[in-house]
Amino acid sequence: MTSIIYASSTDCEVAFYRAFEKADLAAMMAVWAEDDEVVCIHPGGPRLCGLDTVRESWRSIFAAGPGLRVGISHRVITATLQTAIHTLHENLSVPGEPRERAPILATNVYLRTERGWRMLLHHASPTPPATPRTPPGPSRGPGPAPLLH
Amino acid sequence: MTSIIYASSTDCEVAFYRAFEKADLAAMMAVWAEDDEVVCIHPGGPRLCGLDTVRESWRSIFAAGPGLRVGISHRVITATLQTAIHTLHENLSVPGEPRERAPILATNVYLRTERGWRMLLHHASPTPPATPRTPPGPSRGPGPAPLLH
Repeated sequence: MTSIIYASSTDCEVAFYRAFEKADLAAMMAVWAEDDEVVCIHPGGPRLCGLDTVRESWRSIFAAGPGLRVGISHRVITATLQTAIHTLHENLSVPGEPRERAPILATNVYLRTERGWRMLLHHASPTPPATPRTPPGPSRGPGPAPLLH
Repeated sequence: MTSIIYASSTDCEVAFYRAFEKADLAAMMAVWAEDDEVVCIHPGGPRLCGLDTVRESWRSIFAAGPGLRVGISHRVITATLQTAIHTLHENLSVPGEPRERAPILATNVYLRTERGWRMLLHHASPTPPATPRTPPGPSRGPGPAPLLH
């Protein structure tokens, strides 16, 4: 799988979400830069650095097998010669699940390498749309701390 | 403030967090690229695109005035000629608040412009450390939907 060359950051992104949907670990890891500086932040999770750690996280996520649908929308791209910064909405769904999920916000950074475009960073975070943001202020007891920015 | 030239992405980052701590809107906006492609995602918030929208969000956050302490740690940087991608922990605290806050995870992307280094993207998201991640699977009723990645 590592011989695949992605001609653009969007090609690389298509491959990333296809691998995600198929729960295909080899295809997923072919997307990433061969670089110990790769960073992956799953929604609500810690920052994972380095290929080995990133691979283990996807292995764990893919253990349940495929079955997820992943659509993307609202994509905005800023590109330079060597990097491309994409932000977008990931619209994840499980067939048969009645409740629509809130979109996930993702920042994907791609790097132009000698072997084509590869993913350098994936930072995903949830955006609960129905929950109003708590105004800044001191903690009000149990529950999530109020947002300060 | 817009005449300031940051010689490096780390200089720009120092200015960003200093402006944040001081609740100084002019200093904050001097950090950002003069580009309608700037993107800012506050923890748990939507994606904000463009300088005007980003400015309004900081104006709202700064309305309460200064009083916040912002430290950064665990910084990892990947740089090319034109861009620098930083990931780090933001350690926010309110003096006098008894409970220590969980760090915020941030991805900051900087662009080398004709006017020095500027912030192109800020994506911050909470990381509740004490809450185990819910394994993938269908929704189990009320509460946050389980994470799928």
